[in-house]
Amino acid sequence: MTAQQFPDSDITVASVGEHALIERVRQRAASSADWVLLGIGDDAAVLRPARGAVDVVTTDAMVEGVHFRRDWTAPRAIGHKSLAVNLSDLAAMGARPRAVLLSLVLPADFPLRDFDELIDGVVTLANAAHAPLVGGNIARSPGPLVVDVTALGTAHPRRLLTRGGGRPGDELFLTGTVGAAAAGLSMLQEGEERSSLSPEAAACVARYEQPSPRTRIGERVAGAKAASACVDLSDGLADAVRQLAAASRCGVVLDGEHIPVDEGAAAWARRRGQSPVDFTLAGGEDYELLFAVPRQRLSAFRAVGRREQNVPLTRVGRLAPEPGCWLERDGRREPLGRGFAHF
Amino acid sequence: MTAQQFPDSDITVASVGEHALIERVRQRAASSADWVLLGIGDDAAVLRPARGAVDVVTTDAMVEGVHFRRDWTAPRAIGHKSLAVNLSDLAAMGARPRAVLLSLVLPADFPLRDFDELIDGVVTLANAAHAPLVGGNIARSPGPLVVDVTALGTAHPRRLLTRGGGRPGDELFLTGTVGAAAAGLSMLQEGEERSSLSPEAAACVARYEQPSPRTRIGERVAGAKAASACVDLSDGLADAVRQLAAASRCGVVLDGEHIPVDEGAAAWARRRGQSPVDFTLAGGEDYELLFAVPRQRLSAFRAVGRREQNVPLTRVGRLAPEPGCWLERDGRREPLGRGFAHF
Repeated sequence: MTAQQFPDSDITVASVGEHALIERVRQRAASSADWVLLGIGDDAAVLRPARGAVDVVTTDAMVEGVHFRRDWTAPRAIGHKSLAVNLSDLAAMGARPRAVLLSLVLPADFPLRDFDELIDGVVTLANAAHAPLVGGNIARSPGPLVVDVTALGTAHPRRLLTRGGGRPGDELFLTGTVGAAAAGLSMLQEGEERSSLSPEAAACVARYEQPSPRTRIGERVAGAKAASACVDLSDGLADAVRQLAAASRCGVVLDGEHIPVDEGAAAWARRRGQSPVDFTLAGGEDYELLFAVPRQRLSAFRAVGRREQNVPLTRVGRLAPEPGCWLERDGRREPLGRGFAHF
Repeated sequence: MTAQQFPDSDITVASVGEHALIERVRQRAASSADWVLLGIGDDAAVLRPARGAVDVVTTDAMVEGVHFRRDWTAPRAIGHKSLAVNLSDLAAMGARPRAVLLSLVLPADFPLRDFDELIDGVVTLANAAHAPLVGGNIARSPGPLVVDVTALGTAHPRRLLTRGGGRPGDELFLTGTVGAAAAGLSMLQEGEERSSLSPEAAACVARYEQPSPRTRIGERVAGAKAASACVDLSDGLADAVRQLAAASRCGVVLDGEHIPVDEGAAAWARRRGQSPVDFTLAGGEDYELLFAVPRQRLSAFRAVGRREQNVPLTRVGRLAPEPGCWLERDGRREPLGRGFAHF
């Protein structure tokens, strides 16, 4: 028998077994960080806390058939995104990532090659974020693939960003552009051929499949105490605005004319006869950050923005004393829609 | 319409929605611990690290159809066990639990009443362990219920227990009794009527469904530096012995005559024509702790045991310089079997 008779794609995770899979993860995750005292292979991982800092912890799962489809998205991208959404949560707290746990629930017939690629997707982003993969769990699934990540970060206790620190009059700023992930998902749902996508459309699919968490700017804004509150856009702009306003016990007025809709998303919305802003407000998964910035911190905030030249910062509205969430456009004010429901 | 027309059991999690479910968890999880700076409701939870200590973190998932069946086991017990298996991992490191994250993947038709009970199962054990539920995630499942827990603990850096500290000559001690969980699972699999179980048999089912993590003795043994290595019995005694021996680069000899087989498990094994020891070695999920104890620490170890009178400690073998895992019984030595495969 030669190796060709058993190509990698025929080997399943079940045929390899749990201990061998863990050993594969351990080898792929090899990384050095002096705060990792004990990594993969024992009953738990051990980390040295950062001096004078607090621990920031979050967990988020991605589920096959709900958050991704295996026939659409490559295993490496699934791994990447499963971690990215967690790093985005840390970024929204102004925390620096430190370590990652990965809990996999795998169908028995999941190909070993896909397993390796999924792990590589997690590990590549984890190492880029200086947050090594230090542990986790592997269980069998009688149904969908589930990728559950816990991200551990660290922050200065007086420089934490929460959702609840906003005050009436604070201005709302958004990183990057929005709508692209929703457009990318919509393109996949409508069966667009990847090979025939325009560069702007392909960028939307990439934003949906492999979002880039805003780790650095979250940390920098928190470090400069340049914002009063922050939330990430996991469930879209409308939902993020509502969450921040509710936690800050404010109302909010969004400026519909200044929402930085992604170019590819705007084209996609128009092609379907929708207004780009409405399309964007209803969509999710942009993983941008929404900051509330007190007027007296505007110059500090803009100074952080100048140092982070790759990240556009756009003023999209303000917190208001009167309750309610409103969208202003064409000189009129209307109630803000509900946005994207993940569940 | 009256409330009776819509009994709780007809309300599903999908009809309530993610935000309302998170709010339900937040209300049920209310707890005070001065190290929890920010709990449920923001992008991440924030914990103050213990002074001079290290963070110990672990994650483990329980999957419907693999680790439990909803028609066998009550939601409260599913919640309890999902956390217990993680607390057991912390105990095996000698760590004190501090906080818990819960990531739920829920079928859309999961009854809200079951959701509440599952949360109560987690929260009751979390609070008993002084490790409040501080965050998590709720996602939809197109298939099985998945309950994924991350447990965060703390330990003194020079009093950590790992699997790898054992040396030839160290004696192996086991907490409690073994085989009960495997017997309980076997009883459920064979359709035994709960109402007609003997007290010993019912205790086996309870051990399977609601294991008690050995939190306190793990912490005490570590604190007294009374053991060189430790592992928990998630996948059974044979697997635990192998893991500890491999990590410690030793061989191991188990003493088959002294394995503390649970009374109900022994009766169940004999009824099926199996030797109680063989049944126990092949079974899993006891969540007892296996300690390696250097001879010069035996008196310190026994002193901890005397202070923890509820926990029997039984010498079950020793680490050996020659490689291999062996079982001694009836004056003969035989290779140790493989044990239980979860995956």
